[in-house]
Amino acid sequence: MLFLVRMDVHQPANMPLDEFNAIKATEREYSQDLQRTGVWTHIWRVAGGYSNYSIFDIESNDALHDVISGLPLFRYMDVQVTALAHHPSDIH
Amino acid sequence: MLFLVRMDVHQPANMPLDEFNAIKATEREYSQDLQRTGVWTHIWRVAGGYSNYSIFDIESNDALHDVISGLPLFRYMDVQVTALAHHPSDIH
Amino acid sequence: MLFLVRMDVHQPANMPLDEFNAIKATEREYSQDLQRTGVWTHIWRVAGGYSNYSIFDIESNDALHDVISGLPLFRYMDVQVTALAHHPSDIH
Amino acid sequence: MLFLVRMDVHQPANMPLDEFNAIKATEREYSQDLQRTGVWTHIWRVAGGYSNYSIFDIESNDALHDVISGLPLFRYMDVQVTALAHHPSDIH
Amino acid sequence: MLFLVRMDVHQPANMPLDEFNAIKATEREYSQDLQRTGVWTHIWRVAGGYSNYSIFDIESNDALHDVISGLPLFRYMDVQVTALAHHPSDIH
Amino acid sequence: MLFLVRMDVHQPANMPLDEFNAIKATEREYSQDLQRTGVWTHIWRVAGGYSNYSIFDIESNDALHDVISGLPLFRYMDVQVTALAHHPSDIH
Amino acid sequence: MLFLVRMDVHQPANMPLDEFNAIKATEREYSQDLQRTGVWTHIWRVAGGYSNYSIFDIESNDALHDVISGLPLFRYMDVQVTALAHHPSDIH
Amino acid sequence: MLFLVRMDVHQPANMPLDEFNAIKATEREYSQDLQRTGVWTHIWRVAGGYSNYSIFDIESNDALHDVISGLPLFRYMDVQVTALAHHPSDIH
Amino acid sequence: MLFLVRMDVHQPANMPLDEFNAIKATEREYSQDLQRTGVWTHIWRVAGGYSNYSIFDIESNDALHDVISGLPLFRYMDVQVTALAHHPSDIH
Amino acid sequence: MLFLVRMDVHQPANMPLDEFNAIKATEREYSQDLQRTGVWTHIWRVAGGYSNYSIFDIESNDALHDVISGLPLFRYMDVQVTALAHHPSDIH
Repeated sequence: MLFLVRMDVHQPANMPLDEFNAIKATEREYSQDLQRTGVWTHIWRVAGGYSNYSIFDIESNDALHDVISGLPLFRYMDVQVTALAHHPSDIH
Repeated sequence: MLFLVRMDVHQPANMPLDEFNAIKATEREYSQDLQRTGVWTHIWRVAGGYSNYSIFDIESNDALHDVISGLPLFRYMDVQVTALAHHPSDIH
Repeated sequence: MLFLVRMDVHQPANMPLDEFNAIKATEREYSQDLQRTGVWTHIWRVAGGYSNYSIFDIESNDALHDVISGLPLFRYMDVQVTALAHHPSDIH
Repeated sequence: MLFLVRMDVHQPANMPLDEFNAIKATEREYSQDLQRTGVWTHIWRVAGGYSNYSIFDIESNDALHDVISGLPLFRYMDVQVTALAHHPSDIH
Repeated sequence: MLFLVRMDVHQPANMPLDEFNAIKATEREYSQDLQRTGVWTHIWRVAGGYSNYSIFDIESNDALHDVISGLPLFRYMDVQVTALAHHPSDIH
Repeated sequence: MLFLVRMDVHQPANMPLDEFNAIKATEREYSQDLQRTGVWTHIWRVAGGYSNYSIFDIESNDALHDVISGLPLFRYMDVQVTALAHHPSDIH
Repeated sequence: MLFLVRMDVHQPANMPLDEFNAIKATEREYSQDLQRTGVWTHIWRVAGGYSNYSIFDIESNDALHDVISGLPLFRYMDVQVTALAHHPSDIH
Repeated sequence: MLFLVRMDVHQPANMPLDEFNAIKATEREYSQDLQRTGVWTHIWRVAGGYSNYSIFDIESNDALHDVISGLPLFRYMDVQVTALAHHPSDIH
Repeated sequence: MLFLVRMDVHQPANMPLDEFNAIKATEREYSQDLQRTGVWTHIWRVAGGYSNYSIFDIESNDALHDVISGLPLFRYMDVQVTALAHHPSDIH
Repeated sequence: MLFLVRMDVHQPANMPLDEFNAIKATEREYSQDLQRTGVWTHIWRVAGGYSNYSIFDIESNDALHDVISGLPLFRYMDVQVTALAHHPSDIH
């Protein structure tokens, strides 16, 4: 089941840069693990922003929420989820 | 070069259904031709709406505009384009 | 899998009332059939509006889209879908 | 009388995590007590967010306000209330 | 139980003025009957607009919806309902 | 002359609770004095929020601004003013 | 008493141009009469739009509503009213 | 003096295509005349839309309004004007 | 050349009141100097808010930007500028 | 390939002015270097704001993102990117 997810990251004003970079490093590993398992199938940077659009292929809304709320940067993000369905013109 | 495109279709109130269905059939062919050439890489239905999210892989903004403005349904759509860039966490 | 769906109906200005009422009667049957099968678990009127909030319990985004896009009033609605997950405080 | 309530929680940036977790524990008990009495009939997590949609079955607007403004997390929430009415297609 | 209701009227472009004025006359009677019974306690014109803010004192959300959806102009209105509660500073 | 005023209070994150409660106590007195003089004719809590809708009956825009900007909580509020006029259906 | 009023005119799609121009001519006279009496103290075109910002100096909200709702173009306008007060830095 | 202007064109639903194309041809000439005189210095298509962003270099707000309101498509456009000033980092 | 300018002031949460009042005193002088020279022709308080609407009569966008960005409170304001043109119904 | 980019700068409340001015000086050099290479072809101040509209002429979305995310003020900006295409009326 597919979902389009937009994440906008808000870097906390008062957090030391080292601390934030450490969270980002964990985030990267977390994301890449999910990419390798085929759950997080695409991740694109929104050009000019600290945001991404991602596609998740996952078995349920509950599993999606677990994955997103487990993001190391979750507390510093606005997240919007759009449920996707098969399009009748899709040739795949 | 990648773009996320959202298209929301507004079926004209006074157009006979046959006429609209004919345009939709042309639209489908137009979309599938572009999918086969690798320009329109993904198309997903927004669940519950007459809308889609699509990914285009295309060489320029001009080419993207030509493709979108050539859609048989273009006149009946709101279209939003987001320029996408490579994400540093992307493993691909 | 649960979804909250809001539907806002826009009665077409030029449609004869009889025709619109006929569609509404079909809509009612369509909705009640889905309520009986346990897919459309709740439907509430938004007080003061021609809108409803509904809960669907359904196996996938694709199935949800099929059900919603099959609504006799679908063409005359704005529809917003929110994917729901289990809440950790839920006692059920 | 039924109400749909959306709550969006904003975790305060400077509060120690222990303190926030203590408030959340109280919130959970508070919510579960109201679920057991039949006032807070449903609570769902918005997938991907720190938000919930809930249904309250309660005798008046005043009682609803007392219950919501008594939430331990009330100060850290945006709350939207929608008054619900019986839908003519509802089979229950 | 109190509700603040905002109604914005959209006069249909193609309706003959006589027909619209006839609906307005019925609306006026309908409103004044409800004012006399104490259900529609206040009605104010928004200065400069074809809109009103009203206060309803009514026993339930269902009764409120019946009253509003029964308005002769209901089909030509956008309606927003806000549930009101007693304010702790209110001296009445 | 009548005005509908909506006030949304934003409790400052870093103010000690005692200090905020002291301001609220002053606010209450201030409001009740104006209610007794007939200027602040109604105040209702928005159910589920830290907001109110109020009606002021006052001789001018200048006097209204003086009253609102004199509120002890003024600095912590968003305020929206709507000028009201007599409604032709009003029976009073 | 001063009000800032913004009016956005929406020319009806199906009205013959002659008919619309006749209404506009009446509107002009109506506006100029009010300018001469000192009620409509300023009128400015929003550059690039079919909109104006105006200042009215008038004794009450009721009088303001009468003047605006009497505009020949009133039915084809969106109108926004802002109540103005004396500014403490104003030297006049 | 520079202005950024965004124009969104809304093709009227019921106008014959020939009639609309005739207006567009006039629009094109009108625009190109102004480009040649140096008033309309840039015009770009918004990729994927029936919209443009333009830069005008013109002596006054009045002249800008005359130019925009004289556009053959003016009646079918939403127009937004942003006054631009010299930027301190500009090397030109 | 005329501009309508709206300024919304956001008093910084952590600034001592004395410091803020000192800035406000400078702001007042700055505004009154510009009023005396005829550049800042009108300033009105938005009733109920910490905002003003002002009219500037000034020779260029650059000069307008210099005047606004030189405001002692500029850093604590949201500012919206609307370019105004002569209105054909204006009798002045 | 052309992009319209709007940048809104939010000066951090607690940063010493010297520190912020140092970042601004670096920003200026960074911008002027890109102007000299022909990548950042235009930069205009939005009159009355701490914002700019800019045109970038750059080979790809990825390159655009690198340039914008490398801005010394990037962390303190909201950035909106619009992909531009050639306009059929453009005479250049």
